[in-house]
Amino acid sequence: MSKYSIGIDFGTLSARALLINLENGAETAVSEFKYPHSIMKDEVFNGKVLEKTSAFQHPQDYLDALSYTVKDVLTKSHISANNVVGIGIDFTSCTVLPVKNDGTPLCFLDKFKNEPHAYVKLWKHHSAESESDKITELAKMRKESWLDSYGGKVSSEWLFSKLFETLNKAPGVFEECDRFIEAADWLVWQITGNEVHSSCMAGYKGLWNKNDAYPSNDFWKALDPALDGVVTTKVSENVVPTGTKAGSINDYGAALCGLCAGTAVAVPIIDAHAALPAAGIIDGGKLMIIMGTSSCHIVMSERGKQVRGICGSVEDGIIPGLVAHEAGQACVGDSFDWFMKNCLPENYVREAEKCGKNIFDFTEEKAAALKVGESGLLALDWFNGNRTPFADYNLSGVIVGLTLKTRPEEIYRAIIESTAFGTKAIVDLYEKSGVKIDEIFAAGGISGKSPFIMQIYADVLGKEIKTFESKQAGAKGSAIFASVAGGYFNSLSSAASVLADKVVKSYTPIAPNTEKYGKIYREYLRLSQLFAKEDRNIMKNIKDV
Amino acid sequence: MSKYSIGIDFGTLSARALLINLENGAETAVSEFKYPHSIMKDEVFNGKVLEKTSAFQHPQDYLDALSYTVKDVLTKSHISANNVVGIGIDFTSCTVLPVKNDGTPLCFLDKFKNEPHAYVKLWKHHSAESESDKITELAKMRKESWLDSYGGKVSSEWLFSKLFETLNKAPGVFEECDRFIEAADWLVWQITGNEVHSSCMAGYKGLWNKNDAYPSNDFWKALDPALDGVVTTKVSENVVPTGTKAGSINDYGAALCGLCAGTAVAVPIIDAHAALPAAGIIDGGKLMIIMGTSSCHIVMSERGKQVRGICGSVEDGIIPGLVAHEAGQACVGDSFDWFMKNCLPENYVREAEKCGKNIFDFTEEKAAALKVGESGLLALDWFNGNRTPFADYNLSGVIVGLTLKTRPEEIYRAIIESTAFGTKAIVDLYEKSGVKIDEIFAAGGISGKSPFIMQIYADVLGKEIKTFESKQAGAKGSAIFASVAGGYFNSLSSAASVLADKVVKSYTPIAPNTEKYGKIYREYLRLSQLFAKEDRNIMKNIKDV
Repeated sequence: MSKYSIGIDFGTLSARALLINLENGAETAVSEFKYPHSIMKDEVFNGKVLEKTSAFQHPQDYLDALSYTVKDVLTKSHISANNVVGIGIDFTSCTVLPVKNDGTPLCFLDKFKNEPHAYVKLWKHHSAESESDKITELAKMRKESWLDSYGGKVSSEWLFSKLFETLNKAPGVFEECDRFIEAADWLVWQITGNEVHSSCMAGYKGLWNKNDAYPSNDFWKALDPALDGVVTTKVSENVVPTGTKAGSINDYGAALCGLCAGTAVAVPIIDAHAALPAAGIIDGGKLMIIMGTSSCHIVMSERGKQVRGICGSVEDGIIPGLVAHEAGQACVGDSFDWFMKNCLPENYVREAEKCGKNIFDFTEEKAAALKVGESGLLALDWFNGNRTPFADYNLSGVIVGLTLKTRPEEIYRAIIESTAFGTKAIVDLYEKSGVKIDEIFAAGGISGKSPFIMQIYADVLGKEIKTFESKQAGAKGSAIFASVAGGYFNSLSSAASVLADKVVKSYTPIAPNTEKYGKIYREYLRLSQLFAKEDRNIMKNIKDV
Repeated sequence: MSKYSIGIDFGTLSARALLINLENGAETAVSEFKYPHSIMKDEVFNGKVLEKTSAFQHPQDYLDALSYTVKDVLTKSHISANNVVGIGIDFTSCTVLPVKNDGTPLCFLDKFKNEPHAYVKLWKHHSAESESDKITELAKMRKESWLDSYGGKVSSEWLFSKLFETLNKAPGVFEECDRFIEAADWLVWQITGNEVHSSCMAGYKGLWNKNDAYPSNDFWKALDPALDGVVTTKVSENVVPTGTKAGSINDYGAALCGLCAGTAVAVPIIDAHAALPAAGIIDGGKLMIIMGTSSCHIVMSERGKQVRGICGSVEDGIIPGLVAHEAGQACVGDSFDWFMKNCLPENYVREAEKCGKNIFDFTEEKAAALKVGESGLLALDWFNGNRTPFADYNLSGVIVGLTLKTRPEEIYRAIIESTAFGTKAIVDLYEKSGVKIDEIFAAGGISGKSPFIMQIYADVLGKEIKTFESKQAGAKGSAIFASVAGGYFNSLSSAASVLADKVVKSYTPIAPNTEKYGKIYREYLRLSQLFAKEDRNIMKNIKDV
């Protein structure tokens, strides 16, 4: 009888479970569950008006998603729960909620049911800007050594920003909260009885690192006296490496998911990061670019490499013993969508309709017919600020070289190229910092959908890019971790060799294009410098008017 | 019995005659004639393939237009030719043709009928780029003093560039050509028998000035030995001031136009420049902005003011005795049209249709609802290069500040504002150079069509702008000149006081907007400096790839 593992990928609006056959990696069944509460609206909270940048979710949705999807893949596949050796979870992060000592979310308590801050703050809950600014400022002032590992800036998306916000905006919730915990860690706690904290999430979103753990209590006290003791009383120092086992399913978990008590549960991982084990990347020198609405660029190395300006370098971040570096571009696919919605003229839409093509394919075909450099356009890909290397969300997009002859497909291509230049800037930054990059892989929506864009990336980077076909990279990575946690494989590398997704397509740079893009990239860097400098910044001055 | 004069405005694709009553300025009749040959296509020349940047016209069209429109206004108004005291012509410039000593265009000769260079080169004939570059380079090398009056650069649109091109590309035409003459001067010659050359055209487009006449023969010989003696043998030094009389209609002219022999003919003027007398601007300190597809900014002063970076400073350029300065923006309305054609998304077009509005009005309404500075966008108005102050046609448009929230009307407004900033840069340049500007007027299509755009200009300039309603400014200015040439008035000022168009609308700056625009304008100037510098120019490097 074959053995199986299950990975469950918790996304922004839904969760997907994937059941895989551990003998051959076959994807035996999948199941999806949309969160009934989605992102919660004002009405839910008795009409309390929410901040526009906030994004709250309901934790019951996660329990329901876990229950529904795991049972569903078992039913669909007619596999007995006995043959499931383990499950693993990947989750958006930092997606956090306040809970009691016994794991009860505060929002389940009657007195907090109308209090938004008692619910889950989704990763893209952005209303803790002033709190993250204060943390950054104080860390700079105190010359906190950990700040450099995060590109010199604490994000409003991260755990302490969101917790500090709760203190400021809902002190009652802060008071009652015994743990302010990643939703993934909370789920694992519920179904195993073990409260452990994922090193991946703590490392990238919780200011934790393996050597020094969290920022010191002195720091938190200095930020706000009410934060005295916050790490031990609200956060917990029990951080364990991803790629290991968190515990075994308890009776509650067995009932919830239809699995056997005792089934192994892996330490959870951030959804994007699960793409690396899913692709079989479990050692250093292999850059994975996850290309979606935004992109992130993850590569592992030995200890001790410090890369300034990236989003995070976390030991045990993905694979125990290795440092996982993450850099990012704050918008990629989002800028392509923006263009299509806001800039594509009517006659293109009509023509596309006539040809029976969608507007992306139609415009891409026109853009593909252009030669490198033909348009004379150059853009900066900062339509949603810049994550790496400037960590500055007040930066904005630029287009240079517009003329009366400029056509829409030229602008579209320039925006695509700008994201490729942004990626090259990140690759260069890694290499300059001594992080080796031997191979480049790409995953995520764009990598599968657009050979045109992927070829531009290969040409701009001047390096081969390999892509995968998996539509379930997150769940696949989690299922691989689960197979090791469950003891079916004795190492991640043996698990990956059987289970990981295979490269399905490779893009080789076209030499003359690479040469021309080299020249344009030099101008991209110069243009970046013109606008990224802090003093007398034109973009910011305009914004301030 | 009332007396009348006629102004005929020769535009790019048609000519319009206007008959005015000299007692009260009433516009008694108008007539339009489209040039049958329009801009000539390859087929016409026996299939000879024309350069894409070339633009040839047929001189017979001008004779036909003159004949048709003058006769037509007489017929329509039932005015006897006896009561017409004079006619005046304004024309696009530099629109030039090669003719024989007796005025016969070379293209009328059988042997040249298939030779494009024997025809008229329209103002926007742009295929003499390499010739204009050579003239500029040599003038720089020789430190020719006249170069500064033209912003340090000779345009490919100008007379000597076009003549030099003829020498290089059609030496047979060059050889046979006795005069390479402005179409306006040629027309006046035909109908009066007097070959005189308009100071306005010679001054702005022919490198002529009142003190030194044309560049020296040494200069032309150094450029090309074949140009030895070119000024006397092909161009003529008989330059006379606009605003004066060129001659009287001869028998040929009388037959052609249906006018009486002996009727006065004014010295012709460039079409844009005719807007000043049309508006009654016949003295210094009054800036006229003529706003159309491109804009020009004309102001007169006493002698002796030198303005670096403008298109031309010509004594007697418009009014005898005054120096007329002309600056320009290479595209204004053209960039608005470009936006509408290439960037306005489908849903805006549909919504506009639903509301029964044209897309300009629809988008303008949305743009008008924005507050100054709200979008965070800043653009450079160089979509067709920059005329003043950089005289650099390799510069291009820039948009800074784009985000995922940027909406089409924000981009549209930023482009409009950029043209207003470009105008302010010109006003500042004039004032810095000691050319007084006491009042600002605007004419041309945009000034009448868009109160929204005019208010932005007033806010950006921080000065009142007065506009006119005339749709026939060129013809009106020419008719005013004709009334003086014909002796009905004894001075331009008395003619203007009766005949000139009246201000119909005035735009007063809104103080808080002016204050905010002042801040944005400072950033506009900084952005200009980033991209206008000659060395290591990003725009040009990209263009060169």
